[in-house]
Amino acid sequence: MTARRGRPAGASTTRANILGAARAEFSERGYDTATVRGIATVAGVDPAMIHHFFGTKEKLFLATVDLPVDPQTELRAVLTGSTDDLGSRLAARFLEVWDSPAGSAGVALLRTSLQHEWSAKLLREFLLVRALRPIIHTIHTDPTEAAWRAGLIATQLVGLVVARYVLKLEPVASADRAELAASIAPTIQRYLTGTV
Amino acid sequence: MTARRGRPAGASTTRANILGAARAEFSERGYDTATVRGIATVAGVDPAMIHHFFGTKEKLFLATVDLPVDPQTELRAVLTGSTDDLGSRLAARFLEVWDSPAGSAGVALLRTSLQHEWSAKLLREFLLVRALRPIIHTIHTDPTEAAWRAGLIATQLVGLVVARYVLKLEPVASADRAELAASIAPTIQRYLTGTV
Repeated sequence: MTARRGRPAGASTTRANILGAARAEFSERGYDTATVRGIATVAGVDPAMIHHFFGTKEKLFLATVDLPVDPQTELRAVLTGSTDDLGSRLAARFLEVWDSPAGSAGVALLRTSLQHEWSAKLLREFLLVRALRPIIHTIHTDPTEAAWRAGLIATQLVGLVVARYVLKLEPVASADRAELAASIAPTIQRYLTGTV
Repeated sequence: MTARRGRPAGASTTRANILGAARAEFSERGYDTATVRGIATVAGVDPAMIHHFFGTKEKLFLATVDLPVDPQTELRAVLTGSTDDLGSRLAARFLEVWDSPAGSAGVALLRTSLQHEWSAKLLREFLLVRALRPIIHTIHTDPTEAAWRAGLIATQLVGLVVARYVLKLEPVASADRAELAASIAPTIQRYLTGTV
């Protein structure tokens, strides 16, 4: 449990090193290709150290994007129920989370992502790996089709966030959450299950 | 044709002064409320100077956002034809412009807009005043409904730009333009004429 190079680092330094290495590896290689072993090498620590601080690769990835909400937990709730109105449940829950204090962290991440290529890559991975894949894979098993639908959903949801919280475009910015969700829902539903 | 304060400025300095004042006024007051007279006062020039350099208030506004494409010209072409497939024509032309070299300037504007409140306001004005209002007003005369539909269209189009050109989210980023336009078109069409 000691850093491999230089003098022993305190826990917070080690944690920060691991996070920095993870950001670099995830954004350079993508979530699927990056490994805990590779991240450990870049951070100059033993892989066991990463498991000690962060648990799984997924949890490490989530820590690099520093969101106060776990999409996995959110999605479990949204995915319970019929596929026919999944678009509706997804739009409603999505806006609920982004309207909450947790949304501010997301907006900060988005702003950064739009400025720096490395964080754009992180957000990309985040959107695809953590947020959209689990939804799409419950419906479509063909990977090409699943990826296409996930991409289309991303265009609508990212635009919703940018318009409502970043550009603060009226009347979208001040719109009643339920009304906005209802207007967006058929779009999400078509991207999920309709003709695309 | 001389600046009112200090020593006479060169044409390029005067032009830059006017643009700076226009950006400030448009983002502070919004396009509708800002006046050429007010912008002239802030810039310390005679209003005639603004007309000399830029022509109308609309052209001045367009110059502040520095886009190489005139949305007015683009829209005239898109608006020719049936309302029933306006969503399709709009999606196709939108992607055509953004895929062109002119698109890079748009991406730069968008990146800036997401970082600075003043340019977010400019982009907001641009989206609503120059790009979306003319489309919506050809279909819906009720201002509340027109504004709502314009806002929804903005969420999809802004998200499309962010996903394809800024985040470079695959497969959207490399997608065939016609295929992508076809997948997005029904969304635009519903926001234009459907139930929202």
